[in-house]
Amino acid sequence: MRDWLDEVPWNEHGLVAVVAQEAASGRVLTVAWMNRDAPKQTVESGEAVYFSRSRNRLLRKGEESGHVQKVREIRIDCDADAVLLQVEQVGGIACHTGHARCFFRKLENGRWVETDPVLKDPAAIYGNK
Amino acid sequence: MRDWLDEVPWNEHGLVAVVAQEAASGRVLTVAWMNRDAPKQTVESGEAVYFSRSRNRLLRKGEESGHVQKVREIRIDCDADAVLLQVEQVGGIACHTGHARCFFRKLENGRWVETDPVLKDPAAIYGNK
Repeated sequence: MRDWLDEVPWNEHGLVAVVAQEAASGRVLTVAWMNRDAPKQTVESGEAVYFSRSRNRLLRKGEESGHVQKVREIRIDCDADAVLLQVEQVGGIACHTGHARCFFRKLENGRWVETDPVLKDPAAIYGNK
Repeated sequence: MRDWLDEVPWNEHGLVAVVAQEAASGRVLTVAWMNRDAPKQTVESGEAVYFSRSRNRLLRKGEESGHVQKVREIRIDCDADAVLLQVEQVGGIACHTGHARCFFRKLENGRWVETDPVLKDPAAIYGNK
């Protein structure tokens, strides 16, 4: 039987784009990446596991901050090159900047304007690491 | 003054990932790509313009199907490598397969299961092209 991951046309870096959407609010929280191991670990643990391009390794979302994402649903798009997660965002903070979501800036008259508050100082989230 | 597009760390192909979300329903419709010219044309026209990787050119969403996306809001994420559009999906069909959204398949017990109906036969959408 063909594995469900065989349908993903992993890009030249072996990755696929992943959108995390907050199930309750419908807010798009983050766009991240997965390699082939990440969806398996996500399904097994029930929590989002991404591939960090900056750290070049798998990263359980919230492994340092505690802001894990409990995964309620996994969808894939028509050409299987993007994944959509419905998640419950523990702690209500998805972004390492302390914002609820990574998309806290909006285009207004040719400028990116910050529209959302910082809910918690990143230094407090990450213990000044 | 720094251009708002200078903040985007265009990838090695000169592209950035774009999530289109239906403003009214909150449904994530598509994940697509933009090159540097696409956001400018999107802002100028008020309708989503993407870079088609398969056609290797700019594509006004819906230019063949009429299913254009009227853009209500443009957001960018913390590290500026993903864009989020709030759109009004004309015709109620975002996917070339005739589904309302590209994410019409859901993971269930290790299989991708189609959960959403085809709203219109693609042959009728594209006139058998």
